[in-house]
Amino acid sequence: MTAMWQESDSTAFSLAKSQAQKSFDEGGIPIGSTLVDKRGEIIGTGHNQRVQLADPTAHGEVSCLRNAGLRGNYADCTIFTTLAPCAMCTGAILLFKISRVVVGEATTYTGDLERLREAGVEVVLVDDAECIELMQRFIAENPETWNEDIGEGV
Amino acid sequence: MTAMWQESDSTAFSLAKSQAQKSFDEGGIPIGSTLVDKRGEIIGTGHNQRVQLADPTAHGEVSCLRNAGLRGNYADCTIFTTLAPCAMCTGAILLFKISRVVVGEATTYTGDLERLREAGVEVVLVDDAECIELMQRFIAENPETWNEDIGEGV
Repeated sequence: MTAMWQESDSTAFSLAKSQAQKSFDEGGIPIGSTLVDKRGEIIGTGHNQRVQLADPTAHGEVSCLRNAGLRGNYADCTIFTTLAPCAMCTGAILLFKISRVVVGEATTYTGDLERLREAGVEVVLVDDAECIELMQRFIAENPETWNEDIGEGV
Repeated sequence: MTAMWQESDSTAFSLAKSQAQKSFDEGGIPIGSTLVDKRGEIIGTGHNQRVQLADPTAHGEVSCLRNAGLRGNYADCTIFTTLAPCAMCTGAILLFKISRVVVGEATTYTGDLERLREAGVEVVLVDDAECIELMQRFIAENPETWNEDIGEGV
């Protein structure tokens, strides 16, 4: 299987980036996510809410899945995230058998994209300069918040 | 490292079981969880809220971590759960580097306890008959809800 960017991904990816920017503007961690079904319909969006809700589990992807509500299965879905998923979010993708993941960047945080690929998930890495810039700006200003969000707190 | 039940685990494990029963009584999936620090102090409790909140990510352990709120690190914490953690919850335990997990049962759902052990997490499997009975009763009455909660929906 070749992991490829599709023209129809633009809207959902832009929405994920808007969610990241929204979180940043609120003083939160700038990671956004969108869930789309096979027809390209937006099922849910969300962003990291660690700062806003004092909820350590409210990563971008988890918030997106939460906002999307209940669903029988996710086999035909694509989840977009501005940053490579952490172990928890990777686990959520595998649990719900989401078949395709579009990742904005894996430079700031590498995640474990190989684990997804090995499980047969199609992973598209966009390597988006704006995603990288926003994350690195947040981390430079809030290193402690970021470290705690990825389990590296002291 | 030998994984061992400690006398001081009783209170937190009972609390996790109470949370599971509470969820069952509400018509929800009966999985409960407790987070405890190294002094044995209860930091948070929670139960699966898929049915109650229409939130597919609100597994017992995620709800417990959410209710516990923000924390710098979890290295000295034990998380109790009445049922073996799924891929998402296993990922959350690994992300936050929780060092010890007490699991009520792994008969109804096996989870991936080996993944936790391989990562150096101490896993104590209680094999509690009441946990098994409550889960199996719920699943017999609500097979579809259960299947969707573990990504096996059709």
